[in-house]
Amino acid sequence: MCMSTVHDDAIVIDGLVIAKWDRELFEDMRKGGLTAASCTVSVWEGFQDTVNNIGAMNRLIDDNSDLVLKVRSTADIAAAKANGKTGVMMSFQNAHAFEDQLSYVQAFKDLGVGIVQMCYNTQNLVGTGCYERDGGLSGFGHEVVAEMNRVGVLCDLSHVGPKTSEEVILSSKKPVTYSHCLPNGLKEHPRNKGDDELKFIADHGGFVGVTMFTPFMKNGINSTIQDYVEAIEYILNIVGEDAIGIGTDFTQGHGHDFFEWLTHDKGYARRLTQFGKIVNPRGIQTLGEFPNLTQALLDHGFSEPLTRKIMGENWVRVLKDVWLEN
Amino acid sequence: MCMSTVHDDAIVIDGLVIAKWDRELFEDMRKGGLTAASCTVSVWEGFQDTVNNIGAMNRLIDDNSDLVLKVRSTADIAAAKANGKTGVMMSFQNAHAFEDQLSYVQAFKDLGVGIVQMCYNTQNLVGTGCYERDGGLSGFGHEVVAEMNRVGVLCDLSHVGPKTSEEVILSSKKPVTYSHCLPNGLKEHPRNKGDDELKFIADHGGFVGVTMFTPFMKNGINSTIQDYVEAIEYILNIVGEDAIGIGTDFTQGHGHDFFEWLTHDKGYARRLTQFGKIVNPRGIQTLGEFPNLTQALLDHGFSEPLTRKIMGENWVRVLKDVWLEN
Repeated sequence: MCMSTVHDDAIVIDGLVIAKWDRELFEDMRKGGLTAASCTVSVWEGFQDTVNNIGAMNRLIDDNSDLVLKVRSTADIAAAKANGKTGVMMSFQNAHAFEDQLSYVQAFKDLGVGIVQMCYNTQNLVGTGCYERDGGLSGFGHEVVAEMNRVGVLCDLSHVGPKTSEEVILSSKKPVTYSHCLPNGLKEHPRNKGDDELKFIADHGGFVGVTMFTPFMKNGINSTIQDYVEAIEYILNIVGEDAIGIGTDFTQGHGHDFFEWLTHDKGYARRLTQFGKIVNPRGIQTLGEFPNLTQALLDHGFSEPLTRKIMGENWVRVLKDVWLEN
Repeated sequence: MCMSTVHDDAIVIDGLVIAKWDRELFEDMRKGGLTAASCTVSVWEGFQDTVNNIGAMNRLIDDNSDLVLKVRSTADIAAAKANGKTGVMMSFQNAHAFEDQLSYVQAFKDLGVGIVQMCYNTQNLVGTGCYERDGGLSGFGHEVVAEMNRVGVLCDLSHVGPKTSEEVILSSKKPVTYSHCLPNGLKEHPRNKGDDELKFIADHGGFVGVTMFTPFMKNGINSTIQDYVEAIEYILNIVGEDAIGIGTDFTQGHGHDFFEWLTHDKGYARRLTQFGKIVNPRGIQTLGEFPNLTQALLDHGFSEPLTRKIMGENWVRVLKDVWLEN
């Protein structure tokens, strides 16, 4: 098969997008040939604000049904592919929206949320994020993991601290994920994962999506798509070809205020970090440039079957398992 | 002064009551000659439910203004004494009601809440309670302590884990308290405090209220008021005569369902502990028997000035300082 058609034919999954949700963004997802994307609908919000975000996303999906559809199962991902649309997988970057109610795990699953990160950067009722000292998974956190397993929600650990992550990996009866991360082996950063952590999650049946957020990359804002391929290969060599996928962390469309909100605890309290200028790697600066990534992997010498696994097939296999479709 | 009149004349403060709030209870407080009591209005509740609890307490105080008044300052405590009423100091046993908003510290202070326990038994956004592994005071927790200092709210650590407690003691610029605790030296229990912990809080200007909750006492439900005096003396010998007071933890009026709610995380999740039968020490089984305590301290050989300090004067001095009245 000629290279340019591999992307068109492949299942293409982006495991983490936190963009400004509007028609323009969906048009770019279609231009990029995305089959489905995990779309953040909660970071610092509590229960009710998150329900409102989901309501807004539902309306946006309805208003743009020529471009997107809502994903509740991997069958919906297949339907998106068959119909030339992009599937929206609603997801959280923080279990804060569960508040103190275990029953909200099921409630949000019913609303369409199948992927939830346990903590975002700091401590919540479940555990602790990667930007402060981490005391591990709480007793309530163990109950939340069990409920997520029961209901069929993927535990995401990208912004979670090392101790809480390890304990979620051990506590979960289903695969868990670092949906969007980079290796400390290429650049040391609190948000990046060590070789031992990458190996640990893979050894326990987990999954790693590789991000291209340049503040965490070796060459910073001068990074190119080649640096991204290097990071993918680095992680591939640790986790193996069945445990790796894409999780870009595209923030497309957002401005200064959004990043101020993201980088302060609870969205307003003390500052946790400062990214500086946000520029994605040259060659993949927008979702619309996604075909370049497939091409870059093939050009790097990855086989077509391996490229297809990385671009989306692995993600679908993991979601099928976690979403209790097997 | 004859013994029986010391109690009538003294400022009598109970640093922790979590009773069923009704007229009958207030009548018993008057019978017991309480000048003021810290009255729990939030344990597992979030912001709005706690506001509702405060609203209910306000109405109850209004409806029983012949017996009680609301305390916002130590002047109100003096007014209660002068008018033969009991002052109600509204307090929380959990910072959970602050949710993720630092501004709620001021909001609740404005509503009359001047004492807040940082955690209740388990992990919250601030730190961790004494019934699970304790990762210490979170970054947000440091911000909460600073805001409580600024606004004038006492940090209570009775149900807080040892690491979080130590870090609150070090972080706070104002005295903090174990408002209702017993010593491990008389009985080992996760809720009791070690000699080192009692010394540490006192060495840092803090304050200890002694409870008489029999599940944590050496002689369990067979305890008497003498065992309570023994515990008071034990702690007195460690913290000194200016850093000790009373915090009974009276649960008067509550039944089975209330204790089930208290002993499960979040009020409904996994069980944390089981108290068995709740019986207070013989001689002080109800708030109405408070005069027996003054008598027992005097009979034990404590001087009248020391007895007055323990029964309430110390509490008032600490509250004056923390409430920014100096």
